[in-house]
Amino acid sequence: MQYFSISEIKEWDRFYRSNFINSLQGFKPVSLIGTVSEKGIPNLAIFSNIVHIGADPALIGFINRPIEAAPHTIQNIELTGEYTINHIQTSFVAAAHQTSAKYQADQNEFLETGLNTFFIENLKAPFVAESDIKYGLELVEIVPITHNNTFLVIGSIKHVLLKEGLIQKDGFIDANKAQTLTSLGLDGYYSTEPIARFEYAKPGKELKK
Amino acid sequence: MQYFSISEIKEWDRFYRSNFINSLQGFKPVSLIGTVSEKGIPNLAIFSNIVHIGADPALIGFINRPIEAAPHTIQNIELTGEYTINHIQTSFVAAAHQTSAKYQADQNEFLETGLNTFFIENLKAPFVAESDIKYGLELVEIVPITHNNTFLVIGSIKHVLLKEGLIQKDGFIDANKAQTLTSLGLDGYYSTEPIARFEYAKPGKELKK
Repeated sequence: MQYFSISEIKEWDRFYRSNFINSLQGFKPVSLIGTVSEKGIPNLAIFSNIVHIGADPALIGFINRPIEAAPHTIQNIELTGEYTINHIQTSFVAAAHQTSAKYQADQNEFLETGLNTFFIENLKAPFVAESDIKYGLELVEIVPITHNNTFLVIGSIKHVLLKEGLIQKDGFIDANKAQTLTSLGLDGYYSTEPIARFEYAKPGKELKK
Repeated sequence: MQYFSISEIKEWDRFYRSNFINSLQGFKPVSLIGTVSEKGIPNLAIFSNIVHIGADPALIGFINRPIEAAPHTIQNIELTGEYTINHIQTSFVAAAHQTSAKYQADQNEFLETGLNTFFIENLKAPFVAESDIKYGLELVEIVPITHNNTFLVIGSIKHVLLKEGLIQKDGFIDANKAQTLTSLGLDGYYSTEPIARFEYAKPGKELKK
C-alpha cells in the first residue's frame, strides 16, 4: 500500500492534485442538468456531484461550485424553481463532456454541442432529447456550504421520463441496459457490467467466503 | 418514452416505488464507512450517497439517513470526529452488502461479515484491510436536512491509502484497474469498462457527431 498524508498532497502540482482528489471518491452519477434563463435561453451543464437524499419525499441533491466558477445553472434554478437531470449514454458522451466548457450566459449549450431539447407540459426547463433516463425537479432548498463557498441544491422529483423496457418487475430501473455511463475524476467515462443484485441483508447471515 | 408524474409514483407499492426512486439517479460511488464507538467497538456500514464537495480543501460529504434508521455511523463520527471511506472491490462485495443489515451497536460488523480491520497511526477509525482505495477523514460539519431528517456529513480528507500501481501520470487514480464497483439502487453492483477520457473542454470546439 502507498500512503499519502494531506500535508504531502497539498504540496503537489495543482492539476496533479486535482486529478487525484477528484478521482479518489470513485465512480460518480454523472448527468446533464438542464435549465432555462429568465430570458428563455436554455442552459445545459454536466454535473457528477449528484446525491440521493431520500425516496419519500423523492429528493435529489447536487453540489454547485462557487458562483463565480459556475453561475448559470444555479441562477436559473433560483429564478425559475425548475430543472431537469438527464443520464448520459455512450452515444452522446462527447457532446455531454463539451457542456463543461465555459460558455457565456447568452450561449445555448444545446446549440453549441448539437444536443436537442425536449419539453413536456408543466415544466419550463429543457430535457435532453437523446437521454433515455431523465427526470424533472422542483427546487426545495439551496444550502450554502460555508467551508468552500459551494452549495447543496436540493430538488424534489416531479416528472420521470424513461425509454420503454427499462423497468424491472420490482420497480428497479435498469440503467445498465440503458447504457447510462458513470464518471471518474473530471474527465473519465465508463460503461458498466452487472456483478450482482443481493437480497435485503439481515443480521446473522452466514457468508460464503 | 414512458412518462410518470410524482402523484402517480406516490400511489405505487412501497417497495416498487423505493426501487424505482433509488435507481433513478444512476450509478453511485458505493463505499464502506468505518468508525469506532466510544467503547472502542469498530463499526462498518455501506453507503452509496457520497458526494465530492471540493478538491482544495479536499472535502467529501455523505448523506446519513434519519438517526432512528441509521444511528451508529453518525454517532461514532460525532463522538470521535474521525472515519474512513473504503472502495468496494468485486472480491468482497457480498460481505460489503451484508454490512447493510441492522446490527446492534455492540456488534462489530467486521467480525460479523469476515472483513478485516486495518489501522494507521494518528487515526482511531478502522480501514477495511481488503479495500485497495481508501481514505481517512476528519469531521468538518454535520448539516441537518430538515425536509426529511437526514444529514449531510462533511469531512476533510487527511490520509489516503492506495494499492501500488493505480496512480496515472497526471494524478488520476485508476479505480477501474482497482476493480472498484459502482452501485445502482439499493442492491445492484456493477463493474466498469473505460469509454473515454476527454481533454479540458473549451467553447468553440467543433464536435464530430
